Amino acid sequence: MEDLRHCSAEALRTFYEEAKKEYEAFLRAGISINMARGRPSPEQLDLSDNLLNLTRADTGVLAEDGTDCRNYGGLCGLPTCRKLFGEIMGYPAENVIVAGSSSLNLMYDYVSQCCSHGVGGNEPWLFDPDRKFIAIVPGYDRHFAICAHFGLKMVSVPMTPAGPDMDLVEEIVKDPSVKGMFCVPKYSNPDGITYSRETVERLAAMKTAAKDFRVLWDEAYVVHDLYDEKDELANVFEAAKKYGTEDRFVAFASTSKITFAGSGLSAMAASDANFKEILARLSLQIINYDKLNQLRHAYYYKTMDDIRAQMKKHAALLRPKFDAVLNVLHKELDGLGIASFNSPKGGYFISLDVNVGSAKYVGQLCKDCGLVLTGVGATYPYGVDPNDANIRIAPSCPSAAELDTAAKILCAAVKIAACEELLGIENGRG
Amino acid sequence: MEDLRHCSAEALRTFYEEAKKEYEAFLRAGISINMARGRPSPEQLDLSDNLLNLTRADTGVLAEDGTDCRNYGGLCGLPTCRKLFGEIMGYPAENVIVAGSSSLNLMYDYVSQCCSHGVGGNEPWLFDPDRKFIAIVPGYDRHFAICAHFGLKMVSVPMTPAGPDMDLVEEIVKDPSVKGMFCVPKYSNPDGITYSRETVERLAAMKTAAKDFRVLWDEAYVVHDLYDEKDELANVFEAAKKYGTEDRFVAFASTSKITFAGSGLSAMAASDANFKEILARLSLQIINYDKLNQLRHAYYYKTMDDIRAQMKKHAALLRPKFDAVLNVLHKELDGLGIASFNSPKGGYFISLDVNVGSAKYVGQLCKDCGLVLTGVGATYPYGVDPNDANIRIAPSCPSAAELDTAAKILCAAVKIAACEELLGIENGRG
Repeated sequence: MEDLRHCSAEALRTFYEEAKKEYEAFLRAGISINMARGRPSPEQLDLSDNLLNLTRADTGVLAEDGTDCRNYGGLCGLPTCRKLFGEIMGYPAENVIVAGSSSLNLMYDYVSQCCSHGVGGNEPWLFDPDRKFIAIVPGYDRHFAICAHFGLKMVSVPMTPAGPDMDLVEEIVKDPSVKGMFCVPKYSNPDGITYSRETVERLAAMKTAAKDFRVLWDEAYVVHDLYDEKDELANVFEAAKKYGTEDRFVAFASTSKITFAGSGLSAMAASDANFKEILARLSLQIINYDKLNQLRHAYYYKTMDDIRAQMKKHAALLRPKFDAVLNVLHKELDGLGIASFNSPKGGYFISLDVNVGSAKYVGQLCKDCGLVLTGVGATYPYGVDPNDANIRIAPSCPSAAELDTAAKILCAAVKIAACEELLGIENGRG
Repeated sequence: MEDLRHCSAEALRTFYEEAKKEYEAFLRAGISINMARGRPSPEQLDLSDNLLNLTRADTGVLAEDGTDCRNYGGLCGLPTCRKLFGEIMGYPAENVIVAGSSSLNLMYDYVSQCCSHGVGGNEPWLFDPDRKFIAIVPGYDRHFAICAHFGLKMVSVPMTPAGPDMDLVEEIVKDPSVKGMFCVPKYSNPDGITYSRETVERLAAMKTAAKDFRVLWDEAYVVHDLYDEKDELANVFEAAKKYGTEDRFVAFASTSKITFAGSGLSAMAASDANFKEILARLSLQIINYDKLNQLRHAYYYKTMDDIRAQMKKHAALLRPKFDAVLNVLHKELDGLGIASFNSPKGGYFISLDVNVGSAKYVGQLCKDCGLVLTGVGATYPYGVDPNDANIRIAPSCPSAAELDTAAKILCAAVKIAACEELLGIENGRG
């Protein structure tokens, strides 16, 4: 099929009727598929059965430094785990804190600390009524939700194939009320983009008016490659050291998509000064994180090679799912001029851009068919996509067969929306 | 021996020389005993070996409601665990959130939320420069540290055998800047006192000037009886309902001293309105707590009977340790008029009061002998005991033989300090 924008009204009408027919068949089929969130599939979780079958005889109860993991103490986490997360995030082990089951929790707490107590000896962010954060769009709804909760007004910066638009970032940070930004620097959510070396360098080098500007470097997908040909992320700590801006960055990671989602380990890494400040707060907040779960993880995951071997198994399960969706998207949408999408080399999402003003309508058409997508708009601050164009697809959980169906429904919906717009047909878009 | 304050100078001098001789023998013995913190002993931790030996075949991976505990979701915790903690804390299961490994973390977060966002639609506490908390003294240093961190000025209220001095509490809460208080209502830290029914009623009934007054009800030792004859704590939720003050209280508990210290489960319980407000914040802060650890705990702990059976085993290990210390204290100090101490029916501490102005000196004498006590002063706000009189003894971790030695050192030190004061002898007290 040719570009819909250039074909005849008759051809367009025929195309529209076909799309509607296809869609209506799905509507009658009583489908129920959920592609809303980046959840691992049960098969992926089975990959960590070994963690569920460890006994005291296997692990003992002592960490390598002699700590009894069943008792209080050891706030920074087990040495083996700190070393491993240091390698994952590119920080020295002594700058790493290995924590509980949620890196989101660590990020929330860090923003909370900056808001209520300030950071680096500066005023608490809460006392600046004009406090702001840069929001890279499209982005992760839970990052935006933390900003909104703490009254950090979000200033949107569009994503480019090399990361956030750095010209714009460099301009915005001249405002001293702009206090920081969340970044998912590898396989970004939802675009699957990895920041270029130049982007990482510019983030480290840029002059910020706020002395207490902080980048929450969320390495959520840092080892989550889908193919042998993988993206490489520059080491942010090394880059920052060149410019003396180590305090600007705090890095986060977790095993939620390596072992168990929400029951694995999380970690954060920070410069010496940030580390000291974070630890002083943590020592009031908690005596220690669950070291027994750390001990279990340490039994199987000692080196990056252990992690890489596990991630290859995940990739083997995830690749066919991404391929199932991408195959349909290519087959159904290529050349029509009504949608564009990425083919990520890793991460958990495919980002689909449809015609401006039609994403919500597409989402509604899918929902009516029993296909649940991430709430349209969720990839933008305050849940509002100003273009109403972006749709996040999370292919990890449904089966490949379900994904084939889901992608076909989605494509039919995209076609219907585009045709109705081109044909001037009224629809439920409001 | 008679009351030292009434005996002759000669008798006192002889008594002093004997105490010094005993002390100096310990000084030469090269002792190293730590009685600083309320840590369970390795033998107590061994009681939960069964949790370390569960496999997937035992627990499966599904909660009773079908939730896959390995995946995201289930922020409020597993139904079995919520029900159990509801029974422990005296709240309906639907008002309970079962969380991660630390109840201290839940308390910190709650105070943090009140400070940065306010509670019940009121102003954030941080915006009241005169914000205050009642500090029941002596009390728990980690509670005081949270208050200090958030700039909540502490107003001390002395403990009585029935709980905090309620006449004073009722007076202090007439100040609208007094925002709340921490309570350890059963087997208080360090006095081992359980609040009387009247105290619980008065806390529920009292008029507070602050509409957003909050009591953090830390049920740290609520099932931690040492003897068959146990203290009974009135149900605070029932008491509050009578006066329509349910929103005043938020309750906390954990299995840190039931299963694993810092690697068990924690929970909080709150009124409907508080629950809703807490959950709204939590949903931004974390996707879920570690449900796999909840699943393991739920396998063995379904009812209060399961808890009671476990606590009897703890008591059997702890009782001889408390007895070892108390026997020495009675034998060495009774009738001398220089010290008083409690004989708690549960909890983790013995609280020793020595002559005003001598606790630090006693602590130093002990330390010189290799006996580490909880930092003298730690049981008071800002680490300063205005009377310099209270010493917290934590007998759980050392062996009964070590405790016998430790108590003898402590008694010798108390005697030395008292004699020097009565004899007008210069010492290191500065």
